[in-house]
Amino acid sequence: MKFEITVEDLCHWLADAVVDGPRDAVLTGIATLADAAPGDISFLGNPRYSAQLSGCRASVVLVPAAESAQPAPGQAFVRVANPSAALGRICEQLAAQSVVTRQPGIHPTTIVAASARIDPTAHIGPLCVVEDGAVIGAGAVLVAQCFVGRAAQVGELTELRARVTIEYGCIIGARCLLHSGVVIGSDGFGFDSRRDGHHKIPQVGIVLVEDAVEIGANCAVEHARFVRTTIGRSSKLDNLVHIGHNVQVGPHNLLCGQVGIAGSSKTGAFVTMAGQVGVVGHVELGDRVMIGGQAGVTKNFPAGSIINGTPARPMKERMRSEARVAKLEQLYARVARLEAALGAGGPPPASSTLPACDLSTDE
Amino acid sequence: MKFEITVEDLCHWLADAVVDGPRDAVLTGIATLADAAPGDISFLGNPRYSAQLSGCRASVVLVPAAESAQPAPGQAFVRVANPSAALGRICEQLAAQSVVTRQPGIHPTTIVAASARIDPTAHIGPLCVVEDGAVIGAGAVLVAQCFVGRAAQVGELTELRARVTIEYGCIIGARCLLHSGVVIGSDGFGFDSRRDGHHKIPQVGIVLVEDAVEIGANCAVEHARFVRTTIGRSSKLDNLVHIGHNVQVGPHNLLCGQVGIAGSSKTGAFVTMAGQVGVVGHVELGDRVMIGGQAGVTKNFPAGSIINGTPARPMKERMRSEARVAKLEQLYARVARLEAALGAGGPPPASSTLPACDLSTDE
Amino acid sequence: MKFEITVEDLCHWLADAVVDGPRDAVLTGIATLADAAPGDISFLGNPRYSAQLSGCRASVVLVPAAESAQPAPGQAFVRVANPSAALGRICEQLAAQSVVTRQPGIHPTTIVAASARIDPTAHIGPLCVVEDGAVIGAGAVLVAQCFVGRAAQVGELTELRARVTIEYGCIIGARCLLHSGVVIGSDGFGFDSRRDGHHKIPQVGIVLVEDAVEIGANCAVEHARFVRTTIGRSSKLDNLVHIGHNVQVGPHNLLCGQVGIAGSSKTGAFVTMAGQVGVVGHVELGDRVMIGGQAGVTKNFPAGSIINGTPARPMKERMRSEARVAKLEQLYARVARLEAALGAGGPPPASSTLPACDLSTDE
Repeated sequence: MKFEITVEDLCHWLADAVVDGPRDAVLTGIATLADAAPGDISFLGNPRYSAQLSGCRASVVLVPAAESAQPAPGQAFVRVANPSAALGRICEQLAAQSVVTRQPGIHPTTIVAASARIDPTAHIGPLCVVEDGAVIGAGAVLVAQCFVGRAAQVGELTELRARVTIEYGCIIGARCLLHSGVVIGSDGFGFDSRRDGHHKIPQVGIVLVEDAVEIGANCAVEHARFVRTTIGRSSKLDNLVHIGHNVQVGPHNLLCGQVGIAGSSKTGAFVTMAGQVGVVGHVELGDRVMIGGQAGVTKNFPAGSIINGTPARPMKERMRSEARVAKLEQLYARVARLEAALGAGGPPPASSTLPACDLSTDE
Repeated sequence: MKFEITVEDLCHWLADAVVDGPRDAVLTGIATLADAAPGDISFLGNPRYSAQLSGCRASVVLVPAAESAQPAPGQAFVRVANPSAALGRICEQLAAQSVVTRQPGIHPTTIVAASARIDPTAHIGPLCVVEDGAVIGAGAVLVAQCFVGRAAQVGELTELRARVTIEYGCIIGARCLLHSGVVIGSDGFGFDSRRDGHHKIPQVGIVLVEDAVEIGANCAVEHARFVRTTIGRSSKLDNLVHIGHNVQVGPHNLLCGQVGIAGSSKTGAFVTMAGQVGVVGHVELGDRVMIGGQAGVTKNFPAGSIINGTPARPMKERMRSEARVAKLEQLYARVARLEAALGAGGPPPASSTLPACDLSTDE
Repeated sequence: MKFEITVEDLCHWLADAVVDGPRDAVLTGIATLADAAPGDISFLGNPRYSAQLSGCRASVVLVPAAESAQPAPGQAFVRVANPSAALGRICEQLAAQSVVTRQPGIHPTTIVAASARIDPTAHIGPLCVVEDGAVIGAGAVLVAQCFVGRAAQVGELTELRARVTIEYGCIIGARCLLHSGVVIGSDGFGFDSRRDGHHKIPQVGIVLVEDAVEIGANCAVEHARFVRTTIGRSSKLDNLVHIGHNVQVGPHNLLCGQVGIAGSSKTGAFVTMAGQVGVVGHVELGDRVMIGGQAGVTKNFPAGSIINGTPARPMKERMRSEARVAKLEQLYARVARLEAALGAGGPPPASSTLPACDLSTDE
């Protein structure tokens, strides 16, 4: 984003700031200690990078109050209790500045069905399509080129970025943010497979996205066979996540990039899935389950489970198993030694008929 | 979806229905036994849930003809031979009711090139782009905001949901359903990698989607280097599937969510891939191959193979290998015992120089 | 693609071509030896397919100069030094022919903010949205239905296919190609997770896509928390790739389909990732690292590493470990034999208390 602020602005935003150096810089960027140039704000987030302070070219550096280094000529240190937290506050202020107030109203190029109900405080940007019976709530924003199907609902203060699809009858709660390319409510993937092919099973349910949910770019959520697919309150989905039909994602879940959950599975509250996790259909995960990256979940796990791998198992069990595999080279050596020992002093081991532990041909 | 039906409607749709209870309910939803409220239809699909019948608040419950439980006051049981099948028939009827008849014609906001040929019975919704020489067949539907590139063809009765892209020259058969966000015919990923970088290899082929194919939301299918990438007749792709250039997906395949198939691979008929399966380039899979979730297929497999894991192997072989790994703890103990035994009574095992089976430091 | 060329055209494009047979065919397709029909060009790319030459129905077949087989009646062999390279040259020529010259100008259905700067040589197709302060460079092409947010920049000669989103402030370099459905600059996935839920951390950075980058259909790249997410010069991304916030993809990377890279990770030059690779956050990969399909990268790897598996390890190490696991059946047998031998002649092995190597119950 583009911005232009002063040292005074920083002091205004950071209650505990003490400026050590000139106050006249105009600040237009944020950069790491190594990358910063004049005009940038930088910060010492971790004391182990303090050696980089001496060469840093930023106009302003956020440093801990007790930092012993001194600013370069023309540079200001802004001393604060917690430079990372201070940077966070600055970003919040900059983000707030950059919010465009989107004026209420419907862009003239947007196609709105006569029976759709658009709250007068909503902003419907250009080139959208809002079909029969759709409802758009107070203060909602459709940035541009969105599609809201028949009888679908978009809750108050919810924002659909450019090119979002909400299919027939789906319900999006209040204060949600759906990123560009999201598709909510495509048909559930349900077929009756017979000898002559796969016959479509009618899917008459919807998708319910509860309040305060964020859904990343190009995610796809299928509607239910009947009743509904649910994304629980305040859950956050990263990019390219796939949610199958009748899935029930609980509240406060964090689903990282490219996670996929197959039909009818259900998660508790505060479940976390790292990137590319896959969950098979019809399983249930308790509250606060944590799943490692690329894990493949094939059965139920109770609340608090920490699991990974394919098939997913409790982390400790899997680590123990991996440690055993890692020590196999030693085990082969131990067995060879036993064989040698027995060959020397014990009964005949018939070792010549035993395969040798020779891996060379497999490599 | 929204609906409003009566018990009489159900009896009309279900030939074998016997109503046990009042017939005056107005039904507006479908729910599980546990979740149902007055106004809902529920069903006992599996006898092991029959204990839930007593507390169920649905106005109507589909139960097996022989079910011994009785409806609650004001509630009706509809006794049928197969409650699940009966619910399926109800959903079919509801789905048929909900189909909007999209009127033939081209929405005035759609941009159609002069040389494009649109069948007069096709429905082209708002804000689409149909380029030079494109052909749209009889009864085809483009819901809204679709892009059909030069010389591309969309077959009769095929439906493109909102925001679908068909690139230059690609051919979509009859009676297909492409969900929102699908991209057919982006460039094949082919580069000539040299020391100075990756040079694009021209990709002049197309994508051919045969008849009766369904493709899920945000799938992406690349066009061929030359000739064509093919999605075979009646195959079904779930959301976010990636199909590389020159791939030949056979007829009646089921590709679940987030499957990826790399360039030039080929599948037989009735191949099934569970979610997140990956197939490398240039392999061939026979008819009816079944592939477990997240498997990574690195070589050919003959017809009828059931495979999983990365690299994918026949299921039985992999299960045997996993069982052996699972028993490693016991094997370590057995070897330790042998060493102890030999140390006591056999030849010197030199056990002090052998590493102990101590996993504690690895956990 | 559609084309219509003659044998003379081929001779014109291929300096070393010697025609053996009639020169009057009109050529309209390219096909393999097995699939070709009259009117097609085919080719013998690999001598081991030469047996297929006899039945091939193509009008023209590219063969090595020294090929001993003779064309069928009415068929021409075009003898060249390298048939595959010759076919490549033909495809290049056909691709060049098929390029549509998109006329400079802005389609009247496109919405362009007054403060946007569009180079007069750029082509802005129908139904796009270009917001305040956006900049579109010389010769750039937006095919149709694209969204270019406030202050975003699209470099000269860059092409955005249909339905591409460039969010607020993001910068796309020169000579890039972004395929349909791409989203550049959705919000970084950053939350402050507390007991009461996940609170959004403002993300005020951008995405910088350097020159000559190609990005596949439906890819999604998140903008940075601050500063920028970078896709390095001349890197190529296949379909459905996910790039997290603050990631730095180096120059000349090849990221195959469905790769995902989590926040703040960094790759060197000429890094290659096969399909469905996942990289966790905050790791660093050196130049020319090569990563096998579906690998899960959990730590740094130096330049030149060849790695695979989850967690990813050097290829050789992993192959050795897999070979040991593959030989476990033999190891179990060897230990059983040692136990038997000791039972016969050594100290008492107490073998009756040891679990037998019986896998049958696990299968």
